[in-house]
Amino acid sequence: MQPDCAQLDTFLSDEDADLYLIEADSDDANQLYLSGFDASDPFETAYAAETGETQLLVSGLEYGRAKKESRADQVYRHADFGFEYGDREERYDMYASFLSRVADVEATDLTVAVPSSFPLGSAEQLRERGVELVVDADGTIDGMRAVKTDEEIDNVQDAQRANEAAMRAAEALIDAAAVDEDGTLVSNGEPLTSERVRSEIEITLLRHGCSLDETIVACGSQAADPHDRGSGPLSAGEPIIVDIFPKSKATGYHSDMTRTFSKGGPSETIREWYDLTREALEAALAAVEPGATGADVHDAACEVYEAAGEPTLRSEPETETGFIHSTGHGVGLDVHESPSLSPSGGELEAGHVITVEPGLYDPAHGGVRIEDIVVVTEDGYENITDYPIELVVE
Amino acid sequence: MQPDCAQLDTFLSDEDADLYLIEADSDDANQLYLSGFDASDPFETAYAAETGETQLLVSGLEYGRAKKESRADQVYRHADFGFEYGDREERYDMYASFLSRVADVEATDLTVAVPSSFPLGSAEQLRERGVELVVDADGTIDGMRAVKTDEEIDNVQDAQRANEAAMRAAEALIDAAAVDEDGTLVSNGEPLTSERVRSEIEITLLRHGCSLDETIVACGSQAADPHDRGSGPLSAGEPIIVDIFPKSKATGYHSDMTRTFSKGGPSETIREWYDLTREALEAALAAVEPGATGADVHDAACEVYEAAGEPTLRSEPETETGFIHSTGHGVGLDVHESPSLSPSGGELEAGHVITVEPGLYDPAHGGVRIEDIVVVTEDGYENITDYPIELVVE
Repeated sequence: MQPDCAQLDTFLSDEDADLYLIEADSDDANQLYLSGFDASDPFETAYAAETGETQLLVSGLEYGRAKKESRADQVYRHADFGFEYGDREERYDMYASFLSRVADVEATDLTVAVPSSFPLGSAEQLRERGVELVVDADGTIDGMRAVKTDEEIDNVQDAQRANEAAMRAAEALIDAAAVDEDGTLVSNGEPLTSERVRSEIEITLLRHGCSLDETIVACGSQAADPHDRGSGPLSAGEPIIVDIFPKSKATGYHSDMTRTFSKGGPSETIREWYDLTREALEAALAAVEPGATGADVHDAACEVYEAAGEPTLRSEPETETGFIHSTGHGVGLDVHESPSLSPSGGELEAGHVITVEPGLYDPAHGGVRIEDIVVVTEDGYENITDYPIELVVE
Repeated sequence: MQPDCAQLDTFLSDEDADLYLIEADSDDANQLYLSGFDASDPFETAYAAETGETQLLVSGLEYGRAKKESRADQVYRHADFGFEYGDREERYDMYASFLSRVADVEATDLTVAVPSSFPLGSAEQLRERGVELVVDADGTIDGMRAVKTDEEIDNVQDAQRANEAAMRAAEALIDAAAVDEDGTLVSNGEPLTSERVRSEIEITLLRHGCSLDETIVACGSQAADPHDRGSGPLSAGEPIIVDIFPKSKATGYHSDMTRTFSKGGPSETIREWYDLTREALEAALAAVEPGATGADVHDAACEVYEAAGEPTLRSEPETETGFIHSTGHGVGLDVHESPSLSPSGGELEAGHVITVEPGLYDPAHGGVRIEDIVVVTEDGYENITDYPIELVVE
């Protein structure tokens, strides 16, 4: 995938900078996006304003792979600047030589733009060598990444197909479980726990070419904390939030989907919350179109909850129950990226890939969340989630 | 686990700093170590020189979990400083107020030590608010992490037990495979590929409570690039490097082990390389003791190879074949951490957990690597690897 670097060109021109520099490993999504190189140790990527070329500086160990796999126009290794092992001073001399080579400008005349996340230690060393650094506080590459190409949307959809298979596996385990006399779900003679369901989800994702760092399978009062990952036995009649956000190993793109299940009928409150959350989801989705803001979409969800008397962070900024998070976020090389569907969310554009995930939480009752993933289109949105929205698993 | 912060106290005292600050998510091992909090969004951890207290600043969404799970003496949420959603200026005002609260010093009088990786964007914002920042270029917390407590060593051993189970699963697949007429390994009627072996390794690790980002299963000429992860069908009579570095999901600690297998007899060169690499492993291990340096251990491995006429980076800095990487590295919350067994490797101490991984590489022949993980003890080392060193799988 060749990123469209027009925004980067404009930014560099506005800042009168010679190049844009990222120093990070490829867990940094901007690094992966700009370099096209997946490496677990930090390396340097420089994008030259003058030529539009992307050039990499890697260790000798990564050189062969970087030449084959990255999207860089040019790959240098440390030895190209006379560095193998050495001290910090020698390392930064090499680093400055690399930047100078990329921009064809003496280090002492270089102006280099870097993201906010750029390491302060390197910044100080480069400044000591006469390089002027400009912080890209608005995250130009984050902005570029928000609008996806068709290929990127396909990549998210592939991850979403794996996600649906994993959700089916999780629901099937809950569906097939027996219920013992105290309400605990039982599968193959053992309590069915969050951990067992999570393991089934992860194995399903692996078989579909995806990996993940974590998954939420949270039951009862655990479900009332949106970031609780869940542990221990699952119980009948209580809400079980299953939130899965896999990454495709082949492409690095994520998806993100949440469903809430109840084995057998839940409490009246949870039923009401579920219907209300579904209504909030539909209202939020109806607000999605180019030109609307992330704040508009968030407001649409808040209005449904507030009209039903449920607290939101908008109506009660200090609340710890009710709708206590934003309505959604962009998804791509990061599972949380631009745009934001929150009070600070800016204008939506065609090609944005976003999740919409309203929910209600209260430790006294548990929690409910429903999350679909959609693509903003020229005239609204396309929902790329293919999974039923049903609470009760009998 | 409560880290021993004596080195940090000394560093802060030497720098006359009021506190040590980390801003990162818990993928940053120093953040996880100091905060004891596992979170996928960035947060702030401040260690106060005066009180030795660790204090966290997290979003409202993480507040409940941070209070329960972190090792912090005090957890603040954004709202404690009057911030919910807001612009960058308000966010950094909150951030400076937090630091001021932790150290009980006005922001304009604060001296704050930060790691080299500290984000430049935040550094500039804090400096604008009068905070003086000092870069901890030598990585005080990296140094603290290198020496493990008994609990941390147990955590690595747990990950290593999972690693051994995964290696057994990989070897069993190779062992059970048939060989078709062109030498391709066949399992269940399909070519046995790097991808299938990797999938079996990953599923085994998941079942043992571990996860991983990547695994190397590289055959033939792929094995000649130490960072090639491998793809496609495996062949008989060629070296297959299997390098597994899992992370325990419960503790965050890693292990790391490599074996090289050949289905049926390999070439004479690969046999010689294997015996030589085993000899280099033994020589390097024999050099491991407190007071020896990482450079000494690396030299011991290089000497075995050089005596046999194989190039090393020590004898031929520009070589692309032979022993083309360092001899090993520390393992803990990061899979690569201090100390280093390389020309720049400093003194070993009891409690260091290190891998020793000599290897030989040449695209014309393939590659061989053998890697054990050991703990440096008062009088030498304890090898915590329990897996045979055997090349040929019949």
